[in-house]
Order: sequence, then C-alpha cells, then structure tokens
Amino acid sequence: MPELFTVLTPQEAWSKLEPHLSPVERVEVIPTAEALGRVLADDRAAPVDLPHFPRSAMDGYAVRAEDTHGASESQPAYLKVMGEVLMGRPASFTLAPGEAALIHTGGMLATGSDAVVMVENTRAADASSIEVFRAVARGENVIQVGEDMASGEALLSRGSLVRPQDIGALLALGITRVPVFHRVRVALIPTGDELVPPEDTPGPGQIRNTNAYALAGLALQSGAIPMPLDIVRDSYEALREAIRQAMAMADLVVVSAGSSVSTRDVTASAIGSLGQPGVLVHGVSIRPGKPTILAVIDGKPVFGLPGNPASAMITFDLFVTPAIHALSGCHPLPARRRVEAKLTRNVPSAPGREDYVPVKIEERKGELYAEPVFGKSSLMFALVRADGVARIPIDRGGLAAGEVVTVRMF
Amino acid sequence: MPELFTVLTPQEAWSKLEPHLSPVERVEVIPTAEALGRVLADDRAAPVDLPHFPRSAMDGYAVRAEDTHGASESQPAYLKVMGEVLMGRPASFTLAPGEAALIHTGGMLATGSDAVVMVENTRAADASSIEVFRAVARGENVIQVGEDMASGEALLSRGSLVRPQDIGALLALGITRVPVFHRVRVALIPTGDELVPPEDTPGPGQIRNTNAYALAGLALQSGAIPMPLDIVRDSYEALREAIRQAMAMADLVVVSAGSSVSTRDVTASAIGSLGQPGVLVHGVSIRPGKPTILAVIDGKPVFGLPGNPASAMITFDLFVTPAIHALSGCHPLPARRRVEAKLTRNVPSAPGREDYVPVKIEERKGELYAEPVFGKSSLMFALVRADGVARIPIDRGGLAAGEVVTVRMF
Repeated sequence: MPELFTVLTPQEAWSKLEPHLSPVERVEVIPTAEALGRVLADDRAAPVDLPHFPRSAMDGYAVRAEDTHGASESQPAYLKVMGEVLMGRPASFTLAPGEAALIHTGGMLATGSDAVVMVENTRAADASSIEVFRAVARGENVIQVGEDMASGEALLSRGSLVRPQDIGALLALGITRVPVFHRVRVALIPTGDELVPPEDTPGPGQIRNTNAYALAGLALQSGAIPMPLDIVRDSYEALREAIRQAMAMADLVVVSAGSSVSTRDVTASAIGSLGQPGVLVHGVSIRPGKPTILAVIDGKPVFGLPGNPASAMITFDLFVTPAIHALSGCHPLPARRRVEAKLTRNVPSAPGREDYVPVKIEERKGELYAEPVFGKSSLMFALVRADGVARIPIDRGGLAAGEVVTVRMF
Repeated sequence: MPELFTVLTPQEAWSKLEPHLSPVERVEVIPTAEALGRVLADDRAAPVDLPHFPRSAMDGYAVRAEDTHGASESQPAYLKVMGEVLMGRPASFTLAPGEAALIHTGGMLATGSDAVVMVENTRAADASSIEVFRAVARGENVIQVGEDMASGEALLSRGSLVRPQDIGALLALGITRVPVFHRVRVALIPTGDELVPPEDTPGPGQIRNTNAYALAGLALQSGAIPMPLDIVRDSYEALREAIRQAMAMADLVVVSAGSSVSTRDVTASAIGSLGQPGVLVHGVSIRPGKPTILAVIDGKPVFGLPGNPASAMITFDLFVTPAIHALSGCHPLPARRRVEAKLTRNVPSAPGREDYVPVKIEERKGELYAEPVFGKSSLMFALVRADGVARIPIDRGGLAAGEVVTVRMF
C-alpha cells in the first residue's frame, strides 16, 4: 500500500507536523547548578529582594549625602572617619552628621549613610578625617534593596533553556533546585540490507551503518538522549516491529531508511500501519532530502529520513531538531546557529525546490564568504569539509556569486 | 607588593597570554561514537577507499553505456533484464552486451555494467526486457571506487573539534576509536568575606556565591571539566594556598575575586608569589572587566576575574574560553557564537575602552536588531534578560542607533 507521494514545501511540511507536538510532560527537580541546557518546567519569580541590603557600588566612603552638598576642590567637605565597613557584615557603628566610613565595593552601607563618595574624590585630611571635594546625591553609588531584582519580579519563564547566567541568577536568589522537563529520548533505527555495524568489515555491496551515530550527535546537541538501535533489514515486518518497540521506549523515533523507492514505501507503510494519524508528509521539496517522511503515531512523532548521510543530517536538522525542542518544552524554539555570508560563486538550483549546499565559511577583511564545497556524488564527505549548509530559497533558480546566503552551521 | 596596574587593550592582553598556552598533552583513545565535542589528537587519513565498490546513485538499470548510445524516445534501445541486484551483495550474474539489471540506489554494479539508466528513462517492453529512451555515458549515475574518499586522503586533522558529520565519516571508514586530548580541568575559586554558599541564607552584608557556578556553565560549554571549589576568605595566605592546591589538580585556575581594589591586589600578589612568569596582565581596557588579571604559573594559566557576575562572565568569555580551547588542542580556535545586528538606540561609550553592552536580539522583517538591556547597577540580571553582549569598539565614543554591532551570544 504505497502512500500518496505529494511533495510539500519545507514550511508546509513543518506546519502539518507542528500542531501534533507538545512537551513531554515528565518533570524532574534537579540541582540548579546542574541545569545547564535543560528546559525549565515552571515560571520562576524572585522569592526575595536582591540585594537584600543597600550595597556600595564603589570603593570609597559611606556618607550622608547632605554633608557633601556644595563640596568642591576649593571648598571640600571635612568628614570624620568612624571606621571601616568590613565585607560580609554590617558596620559596628552608625553614622551621625559629619561622619563617614571607609567602604568597599559590595559592602553594606552603615546605618545613617545614604550615599558613597568614590575614593578618587577624597583625600586624607589627617589620620581620622577626609576631605571630600565632590558632592554626591542621596543614593549615589548605592545599589538599593531590590534594585537588581525585586521580590516577586519575573525571572525566567517555563520553556526557558537554562544558560550559565540563569544558573547564576537562580542561585543568587537562593533557588538551588529547579523543575525541568525530562530530556527527550530519541530512538534511531538504521535500516538496510546493505548495512553492517561500523566495527565490521563490509563485504562487496555492503557499507557501514553510520547514520545512527551521526544523527545521535545531532540529537545530543539538541539536548536529547539518543538511543541508536540495531540495524533492521529491509522487510516490512521487521521494520514495523522495530518501530513499535522503539515507540515503547522513546519519545520520538527516527528511521534512517535505505534510499531506494521500494525501501521508502516500506518505511511509510510500516509507520502508517502503527496508529493514528499516521504519515502526514511523504516528500518535501528540498535537495537533498526529498523523500522525507513526517508522521505522528498515537501522539509520538516518527520520522523517515533518507539513507544518504548528508540528506539524513540536513533533514534531521530541519525537522527532527525543532521537534525535539518542542517535545523538550522549549519556548520559543531555539534557532539553529547560522550566519549570513556572501557566496563566492554561482550556485545553480531549480525553482520550486529549496536547496542546501555545503559551504566553507571564510573571513576576509571582516566579511564572511561562503565557498561551496563541491560535493562528490553522495555528499558523504562534503559536510566534513564544510562548516554548514547554505540555503538556496525555493523561489530562486540558483544564486549568483556575491549574493548573501543564510548558512546553517553544522 | 601591589602589582603594576598598566591597562592593556583586550588584543594586547591576549597576545601576552597566548604564547604561553599549549595543548595539554594527555591523550586518551575513545570510541568514535562518543567523541562528539572532543578534540582529535592526531591527523586522520582514510585507511580505505569509499565506496569500496562501484555504487549506483539512482534507482534504475545497470547497463553497458555503449548499448544505450543513440537511444531516444523515438529510437529506444532494447535491453534484456537479467535480474535484480539485491542490496548488500554482488549480483549473481554478469552482464553481456544487450543486457541490463534492475538496481537500487546504493546497489553494487553488476560485473559487465558501467553506467545506470534512471528508471524514469525506461519502460517495460515485455516481462523480461526494457526500452531505454535516453543514452547514458560510461560512469553516469555511478559512484566510483574511492570517489567519496580515496585511501590515504586527508580526512580530519589534529586539533579538529569532532562534529556529528565527522563521527559519521570516521565510522564509514571503519575508524571506530580515535585519540583525543583529555578535557581541560578548570578550577573555579570563589573568594570574598561576603560570600555564603547558595544553599545558605545570607545575613546582613552577605551574598550568595554564584560566580563559580555560572562560570562552570561557560567552562562546560567550552568542553572543559569545571571544578567549582569552596569559598576562600579575603586573606593572602588562604588565597595563595587555595590557588596552589587548585594548580595541583587542574590545568587552568580561575579566581573570581571580590571587586574592591584591596582584594584585587591580594589576588595579584598571591598569584604572583607562586611561580614564573607570574602576572602578565593586570587591567584591561574593557567595561565591564577592567580589573582582569591574566597570569601564567609554571606553564598553567591562572586568571583573576572581577567579582561582579556580568564582568566575570564577559571576561571569562573573552580570555578564559579561548585559553581552554588552546589547552584543549583546538586548532583553529573556535569562535564564540555571534551575530551582527542593528542597534535600536544610541549607546554611549568612552574612546580607548571596549564596552560590552547586554542586548536582546529581535528579528523584524528578517533583519536582526540589538535592543540594549538597561542594566540595573550591578548587571546581575541584565545578562538574564539579554541574548548576548554587543561590542562597542575601542576607537569609538559610543555607537548610534542603526549602526551594526557584533553581538557575542550568551
């Protein structure tokens, strides 16, 4: 039962799949310090004010601002120094009018003081007093209570991908554990009668299974847990059973299929037989990657990717990576790292098809150039020699040297 | 013994440090499938030809090209079909003149054939023969032995950061284990009398230690193994001993110091007392981050970063991350992910100083804009609200709205 092979644009294809993707609602609470790259499962607001005491933003002297009013080089204010505010504790004294205290950046203002004079705007008058030759306003060089973050203020929202600075901010507020979505489990099924495991020596007509491992790398980069499974032979029953088992243990299944028409039909039929709504997309107007299959079975996305290694990677990047992010609860979906660069030579294409061309990025006098890597036939090694793939838009019959392309970095 | 505080430009500072950085020469051999993000310690060339047999690039018929010469819609060539080439094995027959074999993409050419006619250019004549209505040249639609990669051809060089496609290519050639440099161990020492661990409730004048954990996140993103150590108090002896111990177990040491002048001097003196050449740079003309210390002690880089969280992250990104990459053996050093974007408003700066301003990146009609995040005083949360930091060049007194800035993504 061959599926209907209607080729969609990449955008049409994604918009068929996207409504079926929702976050894997499994949440775990983990130490904030270990949350790098994880996705927050809850909004987080500040539970306390930060700072929780008035802090000096400078090295200098804590003063009463009014004592410095009118101070200048020629008419300095004289203040008595009552002591030093030690770091990490309140001052052991309070300041009365005409008094100051030595304070360091981050120190807590002594009671009675309301501003800090920078040390550069003072000089010693004698052993226990200073001259201030610049006036400060109330609050000058002081970080007020709650000024960094007020209690109740929104900090991070559900769906945020945790970055190093987010870890710092959460910990600063005393949030030492956070709820995060489970990492998405991605099953990778290599199929093909011609495949042997990488550690075997292939005989005539055989090649090593590599896609499951290259795609596992992309899955890892997307924050997922890759599960490369055993090679499945080109048989409807074997493939159907492998997908069924993979669906039981993973959140998302990728079949890296052989690239002949018959194998693709087997993949689509096997996927389609397992549940609803089944195959949503069979064929996308991209090169490489036309025979891509997007499906959903009982709420879980299932992908059939071409067997050619470069096609498999490019279609994984275009469809599986954003699906992983959606299942991970990421909001908004993070964009693939990409750069804009000028093509160094003409690249032919066909209108009505989005082409992805491996390119090397070169910087010349501060400008980025994209040099097409002339793929040998299978593109197997073109991506190794490239830094990414340049997109030739669907409505253009190729691009000319000097035109700016968007390059998805790999 | 306060160090000489001569402020250098970021480029000058890096060029003082860079000659002292060489790869950590500890190598381990690991499974290729687990090498994502690791750095190759050896050049790798292809040990075999790929493919090692002539492969069909299309679904169609393996033929002798000369049998198709002159074939056209009106004058098709008639060929006898001798059977099907099954995937993963050689054909069980050889082709004589006037004969063809059904073949799938990736199949091994039958002996006697030298080209493949696409199935679209054929039609069945009867149960055992086809009409070919387009001529093919010798080698057409065939991937020749060694065409993807010839035995002995350079594949990846020492210093390559292993990407998903590199894993695929190495495995395709049967290279199932690779030598990689050890991951760089980065010790992170938080210092300050005002610090308490994140799980404690800070009293008056105290704050939580967060830098060690935020910087650990940056270290992880650089491929290093972060080792956040215990808080050290502001004492020359305690700090000196902590750095000495850290140097014994790590390849690179980062002291995240308090930000007052006195603390900085203690850090520089403690580092300088431990060996040669000692402190190379004390003060860089950047904001934030001016009091940065770059040092080398007995071959190991030691950094003193400002205590302010944003300053610590920005200076880590500018100096520690490339140092980690250099120690990791990366060649060339990978660039921080960055984008070009148009400033949405004027940003003041001072000439002679490189400024880094937290910005949010927004896409409007396909163009990227950088919206400055008005940092509250300490910048603690500005980086949380930002997507990166925009660089205001050292020779400019600020930039105007509409100017293009380079944004380092965080």
